[in-house]
Amino acid sequence: MINLTVWNEDGCAQNEEVAKVYPDGINAYLAEMFGAESDMNVTKACLDDPECGLPDEVLENTDVLIWWGHCKHERVPDELVAKIHDRVLRGMGLIVLHSGHYSKIFKSLMGTTCSLSWRDGDRERLWNIAPNHQITQGIGDNIVLDVEEMYGERFDIPEPDETIFLGWFSGGEVFRSGCCWNRGLGKVFYFQPGHESNPTYKNKDIQTVLKNAVRWAAPYSIRKEPIDAPHVPVSPEEEYAKSKA
Amino acid sequence: MINLTVWNEDGCAQNEEVAKVYPDGINAYLAEMFGAESDMNVTKACLDDPECGLPDEVLENTDVLIWWGHCKHERVPDELVAKIHDRVLRGMGLIVLHSGHYSKIFKSLMGTTCSLSWRDGDRERLWNIAPNHQITQGIGDNIVLDVEEMYGERFDIPEPDETIFLGWFSGGEVFRSGCCWNRGLGKVFYFQPGHESNPTYKNKDIQTVLKNAVRWAAPYSIRKEPIDAPHVPVSPEEEYAKSKA
Amino acid sequence: MINLTVWNEDGCAQNEEVAKVYPDGINAYLAEMFGAESDMNVTKACLDDPECGLPDEVLENTDVLIWWGHCKHERVPDELVAKIHDRVLRGMGLIVLHSGHYSKIFKSLMGTTCSLSWRDGDRERLWNIAPNHQITQGIGDNIVLDVEEMYGERFDIPEPDETIFLGWFSGGEVFRSGCCWNRGLGKVFYFQPGHESNPTYKNKDIQTVLKNAVRWAAPYSIRKEPIDAPHVPVSPEEEYAKSKA
Amino acid sequence: MINLTVWNEDGCAQNEEVAKVYPDGINAYLAEMFGAESDMNVTKACLDDPECGLPDEVLENTDVLIWWGHCKHERVPDELVAKIHDRVLRGMGLIVLHSGHYSKIFKSLMGTTCSLSWRDGDRERLWNIAPNHQITQGIGDNIVLDVEEMYGERFDIPEPDETIFLGWFSGGEVFRSGCCWNRGLGKVFYFQPGHESNPTYKNKDIQTVLKNAVRWAAPYSIRKEPIDAPHVPVSPEEEYAKSKA
Repeated sequence: MINLTVWNEDGCAQNEEVAKVYPDGINAYLAEMFGAESDMNVTKACLDDPECGLPDEVLENTDVLIWWGHCKHERVPDELVAKIHDRVLRGMGLIVLHSGHYSKIFKSLMGTTCSLSWRDGDRERLWNIAPNHQITQGIGDNIVLDVEEMYGERFDIPEPDETIFLGWFSGGEVFRSGCCWNRGLGKVFYFQPGHESNPTYKNKDIQTVLKNAVRWAAPYSIRKEPIDAPHVPVSPEEEYAKSKA
Repeated sequence: MINLTVWNEDGCAQNEEVAKVYPDGINAYLAEMFGAESDMNVTKACLDDPECGLPDEVLENTDVLIWWGHCKHERVPDELVAKIHDRVLRGMGLIVLHSGHYSKIFKSLMGTTCSLSWRDGDRERLWNIAPNHQITQGIGDNIVLDVEEMYGERFDIPEPDETIFLGWFSGGEVFRSGCCWNRGLGKVFYFQPGHESNPTYKNKDIQTVLKNAVRWAAPYSIRKEPIDAPHVPVSPEEEYAKSKA
Repeated sequence: MINLTVWNEDGCAQNEEVAKVYPDGINAYLAEMFGAESDMNVTKACLDDPECGLPDEVLENTDVLIWWGHCKHERVPDELVAKIHDRVLRGMGLIVLHSGHYSKIFKSLMGTTCSLSWRDGDRERLWNIAPNHQITQGIGDNIVLDVEEMYGERFDIPEPDETIFLGWFSGGEVFRSGCCWNRGLGKVFYFQPGHESNPTYKNKDIQTVLKNAVRWAAPYSIRKEPIDAPHVPVSPEEEYAKSKA
Repeated sequence: MINLTVWNEDGCAQNEEVAKVYPDGINAYLAEMFGAESDMNVTKACLDDPECGLPDEVLENTDVLIWWGHCKHERVPDELVAKIHDRVLRGMGLIVLHSGHYSKIFKSLMGTTCSLSWRDGDRERLWNIAPNHQITQGIGDNIVLDVEEMYGERFDIPEPDETIFLGWFSGGEVFRSGCCWNRGLGKVFYFQPGHESNPTYKNKDIQTVLKNAVRWAAPYSIRKEPIDAPHVPVSPEEEYAKSKA
């Protein structure tokens, strides 16, 4: 069972435009979608909840955290970001969606600005360049999104450990739309589609990708102890010599 | 001409043990070594200088920054770290030495804890696994350091973009002792040897590696403007269509 | 159920030295070990079998192939190597053990010489540098092999997509002892330990690694059609425009 | 001085369509372009020359080899391919252009099929995703090619060590249009543009990329001795102990 926490800076539809697509907001929609999976135990959390929806008892029981943020990145307290960052390095999976590229947590895990170029209202074609990967099982060689916000290179990220999707946009741009990194003991997946007023998350292939990603990011275990720099006064070779004596 | 700034948390030998090896401290030794190179213009900087030796007029004219820190990482102000981080992402090269693995600047560029295991007084053998790389020109297939502080895996770093050296330690440990990453427009090289009371930086091969690394890290140019996320309201394809009309 | 074929250039113990450790030879030992796993269906194959143990009906039903070869690499027919290579690119997993680094199949998948330095009779310590990886589940931070043949860098391989183990040898060498690559739709794992007269494969941690590796390498599916270069005369955008008309 | 050999399966314009763009063929055009560089010593070679233009005295003096092939890949003798492959692994740089993706030499260095999808007559936009790289110096953030043959993902290549360009095609496809790999001591750059009847190589930015790529691929040295697997009977540690005695 994967304890999945779905975080969004909004707990409901931000405005009418969004409400037309996701009447109860993106978070409710995603939570319900994941909740239908028998191996996922879903918790919703949002910025305006007490402790931003991520008090210790929630965060410390989260195996995979999904993060969708847009214009309120600065309102996430640095102390919470540090806790999330630490838990990723101890094994928690993190999936960052769309405008979450500019979230504090994604930027601190990447070490770069995570900037990009953007424009509303393009047509997108997501090309699957890793068809043997867990994240792409069950989809074909590309996914068309009739309307999606263009995100264009240069995407200021460290080179991904694995690049899963390359996005094509009708206006002429391309983007590394699906990228995986290892950070410490944790796994991070950035997935570019998901502008709030586009019905992207209703797309069956997109849903398949998201569910696969949660399972990919789920850790075998999460380390309890802090990751420190141990002093090893007796060398392994000394220990070995003693054991043979 | 490469404007090289050599930073150390100490501006002189920290104690007698260090003074026996580097009478004027590591920073003076390194600065003199690099200063002998005709293509390097060297500035020394240390923590106790005004503005930690890195006021804007120095930092904004630095092409490559070398960083050696040990037990005073916390005394480097966050605001300065942010400036250095920003300049790396805009193109400045950064070489992090030895205990600098736990510096604020290295950790923020990596996004991980950068932890490792450690023990004084091993014999080290640095194996060159990238003999066609700029950093390894002029050295052989390994470098022996009679005495060096053991740094052992697991080194909590993101996977290097290039791994240059693997270190062998007499006590039984191994380490990714020379690693390269791209971060934004900048290049980062971490080099593990360099415990303050070991004569490591007097070793001719180690000096060759350091000089090569400075030249490797030197940028073609450093971007002046902040790296932002531009809105591109008129798509490249629209522009193209207009230009053909 | 994973159809696992375990291939060895020998179908029995090559000589007395080997027979002391593996009375029926390495292949029989490994086949029995894997055969105890409920999710593995094991077939043994060796060079002196008809069609080298890999007639089409065996190869075309193999999900993961394990390859141990030593001094008879040249006797594997090029046509068979081409078939194995093709099946890896269509999804079959491949695990190459020890002296298999010089096998035709491994060299053709890597595109390099796969050379290394070597010496019998060192003590080895395998450091686990990817503790969150499927291959390392159930083992600790290092595995000691009292006696193993030293394989030393420079290992002439393409940079691994993932490096899992770094090996330390008592004589002073290091090695990238566990490496993963994607090749086409297939996954390749090279694992350095396994000299024929050392009881390496009897080590419980080594066995755990091998079993994990088989599960890691097992494909979701194996593509039937050749991987060709299709001509796409009607562009996706044309198709899209038609569908909207 | 870089000894550059420019190889093409044709020594002249293959047909009228090509002759309109490159009256003397692509090879003559490229050779003249590179020949204007003061640091390049250019040799032309083509398939119909004696020994395919690459007798030992030419190949053994080549620092960087450029390869453009299209429909005559099969006519390049396997023995010559093996010699070229060996020299790359000993340090020679290799630049593979356009339809050269299906050349024997590129496929043997990659270990994959190098397949892709294709269609003539799209508009291409090459996005520069590595602006701090030697190969992209002097160009902007994208290059437009009015007419170029579409090459589309999935490009069956090993993950590049560095990805330099992502190509956008008007028909809806994307491609990893500029990729770098290390193979042994050599460097390989694949560059997708260059259909024979398109004036791609007349584009100033494309020419800049090609010249930069030659300088990037040029080795510091080329190893004379074969890359073998040396037996090291006396360990480094034994040698060290003796030297201290």
